[in-house]
Amino acid sequence: MNFRSDNVTGASPEILAALTEAAQGSVASYGSDPITARVQDKLSAVFETEVTAFPVATGTAANALAISCLTPSWGAIYCHPNAHIEEDECGAPEFFSGGAKLVHVQGPHGKINARELDRRLADANIGNVHHVQPACVSLTNLTEAGTRYSPDEVAAIGKVCRKYGLKLHMDGARFANALVAQNCSPAELTWKAGVDVLSFGATKNGALAAEAVVFFDKELARDFAFRRKRGGHLFSKMRFLSSQLDAYLEGDLWLRNARHANRMAALIAEGLAGVPGIELDHPVEGNEIFARLPSAIIEGLQADGFAFGQWGTAEAPSIRLVTAFNTEEAVARKFVERAAAHAARQAAE
Amino acid sequence: MNFRSDNVTGASPEILAALTEAAQGSVASYGSDPITARVQDKLSAVFETEVTAFPVATGTAANALAISCLTPSWGAIYCHPNAHIEEDECGAPEFFSGGAKLVHVQGPHGKINARELDRRLADANIGNVHHVQPACVSLTNLTEAGTRYSPDEVAAIGKVCRKYGLKLHMDGARFANALVAQNCSPAELTWKAGVDVLSFGATKNGALAAEAVVFFDKELARDFAFRRKRGGHLFSKMRFLSSQLDAYLEGDLWLRNARHANRMAALIAEGLAGVPGIELDHPVEGNEIFARLPSAIIEGLQADGFAFGQWGTAEAPSIRLVTAFNTEEAVARKFVERAAAHAARQAAE
Amino acid sequence: MNFRSDNVTGASPEILAALTEAAQGSVASYGSDPITARVQDKLSAVFETEVTAFPVATGTAANALAISCLTPSWGAIYCHPNAHIEEDECGAPEFFSGGAKLVHVQGPHGKINARELDRRLADANIGNVHHVQPACVSLTNLTEAGTRYSPDEVAAIGKVCRKYGLKLHMDGARFANALVAQNCSPAELTWKAGVDVLSFGATKNGALAAEAVVFFDKELARDFAFRRKRGGHLFSKMRFLSSQLDAYLEGDLWLRNARHANRMAALIAEGLAGVPGIELDHPVEGNEIFARLPSAIIEGLQADGFAFGQWGTAEAPSIRLVTAFNTEEAVARKFVERAAAHAARQAAE
Amino acid sequence: MNFRSDNVTGASPEILAALTEAAQGSVASYGSDPITARVQDKLSAVFETEVTAFPVATGTAANALAISCLTPSWGAIYCHPNAHIEEDECGAPEFFSGGAKLVHVQGPHGKINARELDRRLADANIGNVHHVQPACVSLTNLTEAGTRYSPDEVAAIGKVCRKYGLKLHMDGARFANALVAQNCSPAELTWKAGVDVLSFGATKNGALAAEAVVFFDKELARDFAFRRKRGGHLFSKMRFLSSQLDAYLEGDLWLRNARHANRMAALIAEGLAGVPGIELDHPVEGNEIFARLPSAIIEGLQADGFAFGQWGTAEAPSIRLVTAFNTEEAVARKFVERAAAHAARQAAE
Repeated sequence: MNFRSDNVTGASPEILAALTEAAQGSVASYGSDPITARVQDKLSAVFETEVTAFPVATGTAANALAISCLTPSWGAIYCHPNAHIEEDECGAPEFFSGGAKLVHVQGPHGKINARELDRRLADANIGNVHHVQPACVSLTNLTEAGTRYSPDEVAAIGKVCRKYGLKLHMDGARFANALVAQNCSPAELTWKAGVDVLSFGATKNGALAAEAVVFFDKELARDFAFRRKRGGHLFSKMRFLSSQLDAYLEGDLWLRNARHANRMAALIAEGLAGVPGIELDHPVEGNEIFARLPSAIIEGLQADGFAFGQWGTAEAPSIRLVTAFNTEEAVARKFVERAAAHAARQAAE
Repeated sequence: MNFRSDNVTGASPEILAALTEAAQGSVASYGSDPITARVQDKLSAVFETEVTAFPVATGTAANALAISCLTPSWGAIYCHPNAHIEEDECGAPEFFSGGAKLVHVQGPHGKINARELDRRLADANIGNVHHVQPACVSLTNLTEAGTRYSPDEVAAIGKVCRKYGLKLHMDGARFANALVAQNCSPAELTWKAGVDVLSFGATKNGALAAEAVVFFDKELARDFAFRRKRGGHLFSKMRFLSSQLDAYLEGDLWLRNARHANRMAALIAEGLAGVPGIELDHPVEGNEIFARLPSAIIEGLQADGFAFGQWGTAEAPSIRLVTAFNTEEAVARKFVERAAAHAARQAAE
Repeated sequence: MNFRSDNVTGASPEILAALTEAAQGSVASYGSDPITARVQDKLSAVFETEVTAFPVATGTAANALAISCLTPSWGAIYCHPNAHIEEDECGAPEFFSGGAKLVHVQGPHGKINARELDRRLADANIGNVHHVQPACVSLTNLTEAGTRYSPDEVAAIGKVCRKYGLKLHMDGARFANALVAQNCSPAELTWKAGVDVLSFGATKNGALAAEAVVFFDKELARDFAFRRKRGGHLFSKMRFLSSQLDAYLEGDLWLRNARHANRMAALIAEGLAGVPGIELDHPVEGNEIFARLPSAIIEGLQADGFAFGQWGTAEAPSIRLVTAFNTEEAVARKFVERAAAHAARQAAE
Repeated sequence: MNFRSDNVTGASPEILAALTEAAQGSVASYGSDPITARVQDKLSAVFETEVTAFPVATGTAANALAISCLTPSWGAIYCHPNAHIEEDECGAPEFFSGGAKLVHVQGPHGKINARELDRRLADANIGNVHHVQPACVSLTNLTEAGTRYSPDEVAAIGKVCRKYGLKLHMDGARFANALVAQNCSPAELTWKAGVDVLSFGATKNGALAAEAVVFFDKELARDFAFRRKRGGHLFSKMRFLSSQLDAYLEGDLWLRNARHANRMAALIAEGLAGVPGIELDHPVEGNEIFARLPSAIIEGLQADGFAFGQWGTAEAPSIRLVTAFNTEEAVARKFVERAAAHAARQAAE
């Protein structure tokens, strides 16, 4: 009954089993173990190109470390004003980059607009020492609004990046959800569209605490290992990080988990769309639903025992629901039923 | 047969079981869960005082984040020249502190000498803007030489710290091994001896990846949560970090694991002491053995399938053996036997 | 004929003479000289309170060092989107603060709106580790639009700062121009209105390279000397920095210089206001004029030999004129005459 | 009568005159002026190669900015334990480099020993992520002991740098004194011996506050302008910095000033060498004298009105005398006479 976030969930049984299995025997530490090598191979297969990948334990570490490879300390990182790196990481990108500046690029439904980006870069005083220097773009897929970028949309941004010599990072904390929401390959959604580095999330989609920073350009990865160690993010018993990713990628567990989460979100979104007085803030394209609805319904749902995020203001209340790999269909259906019931009661009053 | 480090080992079954159990149900994220609260309580009980504790996943993160609370960026951190923070963390303390300087204080067998520390601080130009300002001392217990500080030795350093207004950090990556090596309480070895913050290690002693930064002074902990988040070290599914510590502390698992490891080290050390041609570099007081021995014996042991760290130089070869919670007694005994056999063969030649 | 900026000018003869005089004899270095002490006293007299002041050579250093005393590295610095610290210092505040974030507060004519600031702070998630923490506000007086904050306007912002526990910095690169533009005392425009630290500019108003960071709260200044030294901004022959400030404050040179510059700007502004087709972008309240005018007039003035900054876009061209302590009245008058002549010719075509 | 340092002096009349002259007229700001261009040309002529040079106002800024171009934040900077960058800059190199580590290389009389450097680098774990990575060497010429490196000595260190892929920085706060002390060209003492970047000091040798960071490798200078601006070290009225260097280089003023200072130091050193009970700590090869002498003589000289630095300990007192461009020969002679007189009196007692 908890839709607050996909991080209130536990972990996939397959991943827990892999951890226990990985605990056997003694192996080399700090990533020189066979499981870590296998993860690298699996990611190369998934992305249909040889990638350079580094497991880390948190999404913030993945993003901040990745971005620190793309900008000098006097660089500018272009992102949506609602990006996780801007709003929810307590300044981690600034910390890891030595003080780079995050610059906002607006766009509806959490997405950077490529033309707006182009316009901003044209005015960015490139080469002028008085100003921070455009270094990279970071986009989030799924976005913070629960919407997805298509390969074409990513490619449009990638093209602007290349025009001005910027690198492109994708925060893929919910990459699996973005991917299964559309008919494309991991390669098409990333490097084929111009992405240089991907934060490949697993934690929100069934892992305990595991992400991979995936470089499509080996040269950009050159310093990553030093930055990871220096940031305290190199695990001595690396097998316990890698085995999560290993199991996550095995037998398409990651895609199955994401498909389930997305299906549950679609089920709820369709249900709510039919309830008078409830309106969706954004298209529901992954596993997140943002909806505006009267306070009375919100309170009714809370009284029913549902938990969810509260957004918006007192006058215009809004909620966020996040589904996950283990959301029960019965609970999702019940949520819609109860919302409809509260709406009907309110209409009757 | 792998004595290379205590991080080549897997994890205690009790801790793996706790992880699996913790995966059930949905709980609040980012540390607002009951397991995290319980760890805080258990640590307060262990240390016989109310502590403020923060789980993190790596020892480098624990040390660097702890130290960053004790020094301004223009501060000096006094430590032994062989300290892990100086030699093995790729500059993590400098990174998290914004560029503080690590200053060496010599002493035999990996231990800071309190009188030498006093002498250095007396000459440290406190208050003079041309010089970095003494801010804290960091000592390691067990030391990098496998020796332990007694409560009295810690207290002597703590006294110098207070004399000059410095804070005292203890890197306790092997704190359990240091503790069970002597007849004292956790409180006596830490805050009662003047320690302000402890990196309380669990990874090397049976956890997968878990340490706690334990503040004995709440005021010093004030900014820690921001620093941890900003450093990418706040786990969203915190229960998976906390449950490791929870199981580690439950039923004295941590002490039992450390006692076993120390016993195995003592067994090997005693055995080697009886072998002609082998000399111990340092007293063996925990779970580490540093020994000088002829190359021929080293090669013989490697041929037998034993793995261990190699120290020293070609002319004066030295090895490091680290025992762990799961070192098998038969393997330890076999190591001694084989060393003796190689020595005897060499003597015969 | 050069109105490009107030930093294209030379220096006041009084200040040059003071430098030469200060070169006599040997004195203590690094600020322990009598001239530096005298500057401190003069600034205390000017501000009618005991201030703690530090000479530095550039405005960027003054701002960035001052702000670094007001924010932790995970802090947020609230400023106007056009603030010099945001747009023109290549990220210096981020560098000196260890990566703090500059957050925009909009307002017309370059001025932060106090109500907007209040609204932003009410939503700022104070105490929540996921977000950077509001630490200080920085306002510029004169603003980047050439307008001035009155004591009441500063006080309104100061009140919001105190409500949320923030510190208030004023970038006074053109403080003298802001002050003489209105009937108030230096104290009323600063600490009596809630300003904690002032970057007191002299370079733009007749010095060679000299600013003073003026703390009205001694406690906030505690670490400044270390930060200044560490930043490479402590002059060994400090007398050469201090003597500039000494002469600047002597006999109200700073006020006379600013009054002249403001009078020249007013003369030009009034003249341009009477020319058809020319419109002022902002009220002219100090020594800067922003005006929209047809390209043909701009080109005509350039052909006449006038230099000035070009703003705006090709479709809506705009210019910036800055007057200074040594702007010749005849040149100012000629500028207006020529603008009028070009406008008349254009009207006739 | 003040031998405390060469920064207790005023400035050369030629340089003061140049400042006053530079104040005339309006010129482009931020270094786009003709004087700054001329300094670049003069330095290229002096060093017999096209250099890329940047004026800054302090030696600490010159060193820290230069070094920040030579090391990543996880780099190691090798220097003598008594180097100014290690002991006297409050951690500026750490600040500007983002937390690099200064590593000591011993050697007598303030000079790095090339063989010791080679030995250290051979053990430096290059490429291993656990350790900071050797990035550059910084040597000081004149050294902190008043001794000079010859071109051959620099070249020996330069050769080790190239062997391990490190860059070589020379702190030339007293470069002129080191140069005129021996029969070699500026080129021979720098780039021909492997120096990549030089902090070319002028402040201690007659300027008010001016140094040039001189890059012999244009590629290494690529980011310098951004770092200088971001550090608050770009002067808006740059002509006032450049004109000091311009006059300093004009007509060999810099060499004449240094020759005088060195001659005065030699005069004193020779005098003191003849006084029983006084011993020189280091060879006097520039404008600094370090001498051990009885407390009674020290006190006698102070009573005579002489000022100088006090080094050493109560049991083994030592003094530092620094001569300068304007040290009067009569005063230097008087110092020797008075020292001899105090020694004679003491011997008689």
